[in-house]
Amino acid sequence: MREGLLIVISGPSGTGKSTICQALLECFPHMGFSVSATTRPPRPGEREGEHYFFLSEEEFQRRLVQGKFLEWACVYGNYYGTLRSVVEDMLAAGQDVLFDIDIQGGRQVRAQIPNGVFIFLVPPSCAEQRRRLAARNTDCAETIEQRIRETCLQMEALPEYDYWVINDNLEQTVATVQAIITAEKQRVDRQKEADLVKIMRLEVDDL
Amino acid sequence: MREGLLIVISGPSGTGKSTICQALLECFPHMGFSVSATTRPPRPGEREGEHYFFLSEEEFQRRLVQGKFLEWACVYGNYYGTLRSVVEDMLAAGQDVLFDIDIQGGRQVRAQIPNGVFIFLVPPSCAEQRRRLAARNTDCAETIEQRIRETCLQMEALPEYDYWVINDNLEQTVATVQAIITAEKQRVDRQKEADLVKIMRLEVDDL
Repeated sequence: MREGLLIVISGPSGTGKSTICQALLECFPHMGFSVSATTRPPRPGEREGEHYFFLSEEEFQRRLVQGKFLEWACVYGNYYGTLRSVVEDMLAAGQDVLFDIDIQGGRQVRAQIPNGVFIFLVPPSCAEQRRRLAARNTDCAETIEQRIRETCLQMEALPEYDYWVINDNLEQTVATVQAIITAEKQRVDRQKEADLVKIMRLEVDDL
Repeated sequence: MREGLLIVISGPSGTGKSTICQALLECFPHMGFSVSATTRPPRPGEREGEHYFFLSEEEFQRRLVQGKFLEWACVYGNYYGTLRSVVEDMLAAGQDVLFDIDIQGGRQVRAQIPNGVFIFLVPPSCAEQRRRLAARNTDCAETIEQRIRETCLQMEALPEYDYWVINDNLEQTVATVQAIITAEKQRVDRQKEADLVKIMRLEVDDL
């Protein structure tokens, strides 16, 4: 069984991470999505276990001290995190796992799973970033300006990532991320020793 | 000006390197092809400067001792090689350069241009490899069997490459190589320092 690929889509708030991840899941029906746990209240239409696992702050903190999280963060007063066991089981079963997380979360995942594929989504410009946050209609003007300042700070994490993709066109961005995933699966240094030996003996039908 | 990408397509004889490279050049009209010099006589339809630079053995050896070759090899009694200046000028001008070379040549290029993208084409199986060499109609049965033995030896170079692609379907192989090229251009560690700073400042329109 070949181990799955961990794919992290990260970047500043409002860069379009969620939209890109939704589109990727439609393109790759066998790809698993890393559903996060959170203490923030559900937005309209969000369902338990599909968009998030909604936990009380007490329950979240209990699991945190038990070391159950692969990554976690407190953003705008709410906790977000990914349960380690869920991800590890999916990868071991050969399933690719997609992560939609912020910069802090990406950094924690990289520290624990360094052989993941870390993709940084770049907003086209500050002006476009502002327009998108406003269109989301969930934040007031002050929050938006605060987020723009945070975007500029978060951009400094770019050198920690493997790939960067400017998200100025949904279709184009999805195609580029697809290409990155396709390419990463063909990396020689990602093959298990036993599979490399099979390839070198031209026993490629057994892979 | 962004520097071009050096893309090396290599693998055992008869794996389909030339066919794949031709198809890639059709997909990427702005991609440059590294035309080799050789001392072997032209095959029917081969044109000087397009398929090869055809040199006398004396002329080839003269340039060799002058250090003019990026890589060279003597295969079946004929010399093949790539002139260093041609490739370096293309890369500096921002043009991607495609290489279609054997294992020995790939090894020499890697030693001199380690940040190239090295792709190893894998034949589907020994039986298929034998069929392809026969269909080419340029070698006798003994030569083919000798090449099959060499294929198995050449497969041992696989771990020196960045990517491996099984060439069992032209369209699929071209698509995979295209994905690899697309992905490599998005690697953070391929960006020049100045370009990374522009991205981090969201001055992405200037790239």
